[in-house]
This record gives sequence, structure tokens and C-alpha cells, in this order.
Amino acid sequence: MEQIKDYIATHKDRFLSELVELLKIPSISADTAFSQDVLETAKAVEKSLIDAGCENTEICETKGYPVVYGDKIIDPDLPTILVYGHYDVQPPDPMELWESPPFEPVIKKTELHPDGAIFARGACDDKGQMFMHVKAVEFMIKNDQLPCNVKFMIEGEEEVGSDSLADFLEDHKEKLSNDIILISDTGMMANDVPSITTGLRGLSYVEVEVTGPNRDLHSGIYGGAVPNPINVLNKMIASLHDENNHITIPGFYDKVEKVSDEERAEMAKAPFSLDAYKKALDIADVQGEKGYTTAERYSIRPTLDVNGIWGGYTGEGAKTVIASKAYAKISMRLVPDQDPEEITELFTKHFESIAPKSVKIKVTPHHGGLPYVTKTDSVGYKAAAKAYQATFGKTPIPERTGGSIPIVALFEQVLESKTILMGFGLDSDAIHSPNEHFGVWNYLKGIETIPYFYKYYTEMTS
Amino acid sequence: MEQIKDYIATHKDRFLSELVELLKIPSISADTAFSQDVLETAKAVEKSLIDAGCENTEICETKGYPVVYGDKIIDPDLPTILVYGHYDVQPPDPMELWESPPFEPVIKKTELHPDGAIFARGACDDKGQMFMHVKAVEFMIKNDQLPCNVKFMIEGEEEVGSDSLADFLEDHKEKLSNDIILISDTGMMANDVPSITTGLRGLSYVEVEVTGPNRDLHSGIYGGAVPNPINVLNKMIASLHDENNHITIPGFYDKVEKVSDEERAEMAKAPFSLDAYKKALDIADVQGEKGYTTAERYSIRPTLDVNGIWGGYTGEGAKTVIASKAYAKISMRLVPDQDPEEITELFTKHFESIAPKSVKIKVTPHHGGLPYVTKTDSVGYKAAAKAYQATFGKTPIPERTGGSIPIVALFEQVLESKTILMGFGLDSDAIHSPNEHFGVWNYLKGIETIPYFYKYYTEMTS
Repeated sequence: MEQIKDYIATHKDRFLSELVELLKIPSISADTAFSQDVLETAKAVEKSLIDAGCENTEICETKGYPVVYGDKIIDPDLPTILVYGHYDVQPPDPMELWESPPFEPVIKKTELHPDGAIFARGACDDKGQMFMHVKAVEFMIKNDQLPCNVKFMIEGEEEVGSDSLADFLEDHKEKLSNDIILISDTGMMANDVPSITTGLRGLSYVEVEVTGPNRDLHSGIYGGAVPNPINVLNKMIASLHDENNHITIPGFYDKVEKVSDEERAEMAKAPFSLDAYKKALDIADVQGEKGYTTAERYSIRPTLDVNGIWGGYTGEGAKTVIASKAYAKISMRLVPDQDPEEITELFTKHFESIAPKSVKIKVTPHHGGLPYVTKTDSVGYKAAAKAYQATFGKTPIPERTGGSIPIVALFEQVLESKTILMGFGLDSDAIHSPNEHFGVWNYLKGIETIPYFYKYYTEMTS
Repeated sequence: MEQIKDYIATHKDRFLSELVELLKIPSISADTAFSQDVLETAKAVEKSLIDAGCENTEICETKGYPVVYGDKIIDPDLPTILVYGHYDVQPPDPMELWESPPFEPVIKKTELHPDGAIFARGACDDKGQMFMHVKAVEFMIKNDQLPCNVKFMIEGEEEVGSDSLADFLEDHKEKLSNDIILISDTGMMANDVPSITTGLRGLSYVEVEVTGPNRDLHSGIYGGAVPNPINVLNKMIASLHDENNHITIPGFYDKVEKVSDEERAEMAKAPFSLDAYKKALDIADVQGEKGYTTAERYSIRPTLDVNGIWGGYTGEGAKTVIASKAYAKISMRLVPDQDPEEITELFTKHFESIAPKSVKIKVTPHHGGLPYVTKTDSVGYKAAAKAYQATFGKTPIPERTGGSIPIVALFEQVLESKTILMGFGLDSDAIHSPNEHFGVWNYLKGIETIPYFYKYYTEMTS
């Protein structure tokens, strides 16, 4: 990949300004008020593919938001890399915690990003990381260095569960046929500690509603005599973890793959400072399942977290009410070989069974996703490792991460391809949080590294 | 009290329309957006006192919302009755559950109110019940049947803790000097089962905040490894009741007066149908402290209820976040001789002590109130009982209720007077809830009954 560094240096400002323009559009898929913006973003992505030199670009209709497609087929006998990304973003709330508006990108220097980082919702997840691929392919096409075929599949519903994707893949299997899938929607351990994500957790997500009395009640007249749905919900949720932070849902751990002692020892070698971890989050102590390290807790062990809870009076001042209803959003991260639909069913059955007779329970499942693990002896992994080696000067560490990308398992099922997760973000990029950002250095490093993957993958599969 | 029934029959429509006009003004003391409405309501109350024949009316400034004063002094040697009420109302939310707008009063017939009930926020608590006293005094003055002196003290902050009242009482002790205080802000057991409230619970109210990580986190990357403030808050709140629904805060029950077996046996004689109670609330089971009946649980036992809880993502759809903070509003109803300030301190100390090291806790106290019990052998109680006997044809049942009226203990401390609680509302009036209402029959019955109290009290103290 000669001249990649020069190309980046020459076009750096344009690479940044194009990304900034894309980040300005509030493509919030979770909120229908922004549907026009989401569609506008799809158009902008299609245009960027055309400008990069792709062909056959298309904004493909789905049941929901469209998938943007584009390709460059140079020789049907060469391998085909399919690039997946998403152009939709997480909701930005809570707004008041952003230091600059989430859809008015600014580049600011920080301690971890002395070259500056782009602050905006979607800067890292996923517009910044998706756009690295567009720029990398632009380099390869414009400099006649594309070694194989490439196809792009950029969707607009990842943050809300990619509901339309399964059907889209089924309907366009031929068009999307490929040898390997490339995704940048994960991170590295540090700018000087490259890593490749080899494991993703699965996801089961439910919403629960507890109903007590049929109306809000005066807590003096009725307090102590009637079920208080908030207190009941608290008891029920509290019971889901025992004193060792082990989840108490019957059958929950039955299919959890036991990770070997050797693999755990390997994992333990990865650089990790518990002090730095606690300091970055400003917590006096970590907290998790007894018998496991922090890194194990967020990667190879399943979890249960309340993502949101509400009920009763939450406004200014005091109101002495017993609410009729209390609600919570609860998600569970899963590991191989847990199945999200089975886990959701186990949760529902158990939650309904522990409810006192005095209340009514409703459990509504949301989207889920299968866990996924990539073997480090695969061609795809080796090509990626070699690419990082070329640009970072060191071997990347294979890392099982805590996040979920449910469609990775879907890709394997429908398109029968493995996925390589080449991430360039950092945990401190605050994805899903206020003040999300993406390092300028990381962005450019990704653009530099990705073409090496194409080179090595093509070489290794010839 | 001759002609009281005729007077009511003659002026019934005016009595209703005047109350309706008062109910239209949204005097929500908890929300500063409505401060003009609160002040306008004070003026309307003053005018109603003038129209009733009161003198020396005044809108008295305080640190907060004003107290409306008025009197009719006929002879300094006669007893003086001081009428307390409040012109502010609870916030109406949740708005979407009101069948008619909370500040657009309508009179509708219901099963319990075949003569109709006025539906509006404040219809019962407290404008309707307060206005009964204005109309009762109007009758007595206009028909030259006022047997003793009367003073009115109607405040505008009861729903937010009456913060300015203590100072107001201290500053105007002379002006407010009286022999007995009359309040209508409680209920009766049923329209055909008159009762007088002889006990009020006290109140301790706190707001808690649990902080985990210093920002919202991605629940995949961090889930299982860090303290989740919502899960932690749930565990902490759940631990406040044991399996017998007994509150676990150390020292909480130390000063609770043991109610004698005789008194409990007396209480048990009052009409109460557990089936009807459950049916009205549409719950399959009641829930409360083991070893006590439902009526005991809401009257002679202290309680702890979560009035509101929130944290994390509560909007549409799914968001996989670990919130940085979780919050709850918690109140405790108290019984003699628990002290609200001491209880708040016990709660705070205990709550901070059970928090894991991984989170930070903040406890903010809100207004509280002392519990109160009236002796049934007092002159005031006997006069009230005789008044109900005169208009209902049966002896009222003395009833200890669950609600709190913190200023009753304050009155005893500062003005050195007892309070008689002559209530005409029903539990089903849904005070503090959507669709609050007050029976037309109850409103008029109160206007009819109150003058008899004046008569008998004056007779019994001569």
C-alpha cells in the first residue's frame, strides 16, 4: 500500500471536513421525529461512495430505513470483501451534559488525543469508523491499488436492533455474496496497544411493567396497606443478583461456555490497570460477579443491567403518592452459547413467578442478538493482525469485548461469512454517552490500516 | 341551628357555582410556573370571606405564599374558633389519566355520589372542604346565629410542606389566639358512616441520589464490571423491608407507641370490608406488615414508600446504557411518638451505611411533620361528635387515619390549641390522584354540620 501515508497527509483536511458534514445530520433512528434526517444521511453516504469511486450505488428500500449499497468489482475471480457499517446514531440525551452540541461537531485536543478528537454524536459509533472504510477504498481505487472486489452495505437501524436487516439479507443474498465481512464498530485497548475484537456478547432486552392499585393513591391514606409497585419492582430486580452478583434466574447459566483456564490466563496478560479503570470512571470500587476479574466480567461472563427505571412522581419537590405503575428496561449481555430468545423466555417466566400476588406483571421483549466469537487461526483474523502489525509496528492483542453487534451472527447464518472486527475507537470515546468523540489520529490510522487488510487478505486467499 | 337546611336549599346553586369558580384557578404550589394563580386564589378566598360577612380580612405576607385572614369577633368573652384550611392544590399529573381537565370543574353523578360530585383538582383537598366553613359561617352571620367568635387562617403552601407557617404563627400569636382549631382536610368512612379523624400519621420525606460511574456508560463494554446505580439503588431500597414487611432501619420503631389490645379491638369494630377494599383498587391481594390488619397498617403503624424513582433511559424503545445516576423520592409515615427529624436522620445514616463502596450517596431531606392523636374525651371532640349526631342521626366513629397534616402538631406547639378534624370527604374521592372529586351531598352536609359544632362547643365551654 505505497503512498497511503502521503495520500492521507494530502487529503487530511478534506477527510475531516467530509466526516464533519456527515456528523451534522442528526440520524437518530430511535426517534421518528428525525426520520427525514435519517433518510438524508443515507443519501449523503451514497454520494460519498460514488465520490470514492464505487459503482452500482443504490439506496435500497427495506421495511424500515434503507440500506446504502455500493461496490467496485474488478474481477469475479478475486475475493470479495463486504464492508458493513451503520449511518444511524444513538439518541444524544441527556442533552445538558454535552459540552458542545451533539450535532455541531468540533475538534478539540484532549489528554488521550493530543492531535485532537472530533466531538459529536456518531463520531465514533459509527459514522467515523464507517467513513474510514470509504476513504480507504477511495485511496485504493484512485491509486489503482484495489487488490480485490469490495461491496458496501451501510444500514440505518443498528441502534434500534436492525429489524429490517434479516429480510434484506435474505432478499439480496446474491448481490451481497462475499468471502469476508469487515466491520469497524469496536475499539482498541489504546493508541499504542492495538487490539482486534474476537468476541462479542449477545443481547436480550426486555421492558417490564408492574401494576399495583388501579390508580395513583395518597400514600398517607393507603401507605403500608397496599402493594407499592415501585417497592415491589425494586425487590424483584434486587433478587435477580445474589450476594456474589451471580444472576439468580433459573437456567440462565446452563449454556454458558466454560472458558478454559489457559484462555483466561492469556486474557490476563493483556495490559489492564484496575486503578486507571476506576480513576477514569471516578468510582472507589468496581463491582461484579465473584470469582472473575474485571476484564472477565465484561467479556466472557453474562450480565444483567437495568438500563432505565421510572415510576411515580419525579418532578420538582415532594409528592406523597403511591404510583399505580412502575417500569424498567432491563438488558442482559450474553456469551456463547446462550440463546437470546431462550434467555428472554427464562427471564420472563422467572420474573412473572417471583411477583407477589398483589401486583400484575407485563414483560415486553425488545430486540436481541446472539453472542459471537472469531477464531484467531482464521485467514481473516491473520490478515487483519498483519495489517495492524504493518501500521502500528506491533502485533494486535485478540480481545473479547463486552459489546454486542447482533447482526454478526446473522451474517454468518444468512450470508455464510465470517466477520472481522477492525476497530480503531477507544473505550474513553464515550459512545452511547454525552460528549462522544473520535480521535483524529485514530480516524487517520484506520484509513491507513484498512488497505493493508485488503492486500494481505487477497494474498492469503490466492 | 334553625333554618340551616332551608338556607342550604335556597342557596345551593350559588354554593356550588362559587366553589366551581375557585376550583378553576390552578393554585399549584409545587410548581413556580403557577405562582400568579396561587396569588389570585388567595385574593378569591379573601373576597369570599368578605362576602360571608367576615371583617378584618387580610392577605398576610409570608416568606412564601400568603395566608388569608378574616374574622368575626362578636364578644371577647365568648370562645374563639380558628378555622384552618389551604387554598393551594396538588399537581394534577399524570394529566392523561383525567377524564375531564383538572381545572375545568364538572359535576357528574357516580355510584357513590348519586347526587353528583364535583370533579376537579382541589375539589376535596382542600378547596371544597375549606369552602364549607366559609358557607357555614356565612349562614351563621347572615342569620344572626353565630354563637361565638370565629377566625379564618387559610394558607397556600400545605401541599409543599407549609414552610412559612411556623414563622407566621410565631409572628401573629396574638392575632391568632383561639380556644380550638377546626380543620376539614380528612374524610369519613362512608356517607352513612360518619367518622371523626382522631389520629394523623407524621411524615418524613427524603430524596436520594446514587452515583456510580462519572458518566453514562455503554452497557456492553462496561456491563458486569462496574456498579450500576439503578441496580444498586434497587438493592438498597429492597433491603429497607424484611420478609415480614417490617422496616429494617435501626432504631426506626424505638419510639413507636404500643397501641393497647383494647384499642385495637375497638378499631376492629369499625366497618371495613377487605373484599371491597381490594376490589376498589383492583388488586388481588393487600400487602403490609405481618401481624397487623389492613386498617392497622394504614393508621397505627409507620411505613416506608417510594413515591418516585427514575434513572437511565426511559424514552421510547431500547437504549443500552448504564446510567451514571439513579434517584428516588422516599417517604415514611410516622406514628406517635416518632419524631420526623430523628427518623430522617436514622434513615440517612442507615442508607449511607448500606451503600457499597463503589457508589456515592446523597440524601436530601424534604419537609416532615409530627404525628398527632386527639383524645375522644375532650370538649372539642364531644362537640364535634354531637354535631355529626345532629345531622347524620348517628354517633360518629373515632378513626385514626393514615394521612398527615403536619401543622396540627405545630398549632399545639405555637398556639397551644387542640385541633378537631371534621372531615366530609371519602377515600374514594381520589385526592392526590387523577379525577379527584367531592360529593355535592358531602359538601352540603358539611355546611349543615359545621354550625352545630359552633353551637355545642359554645354551650359546652360556657
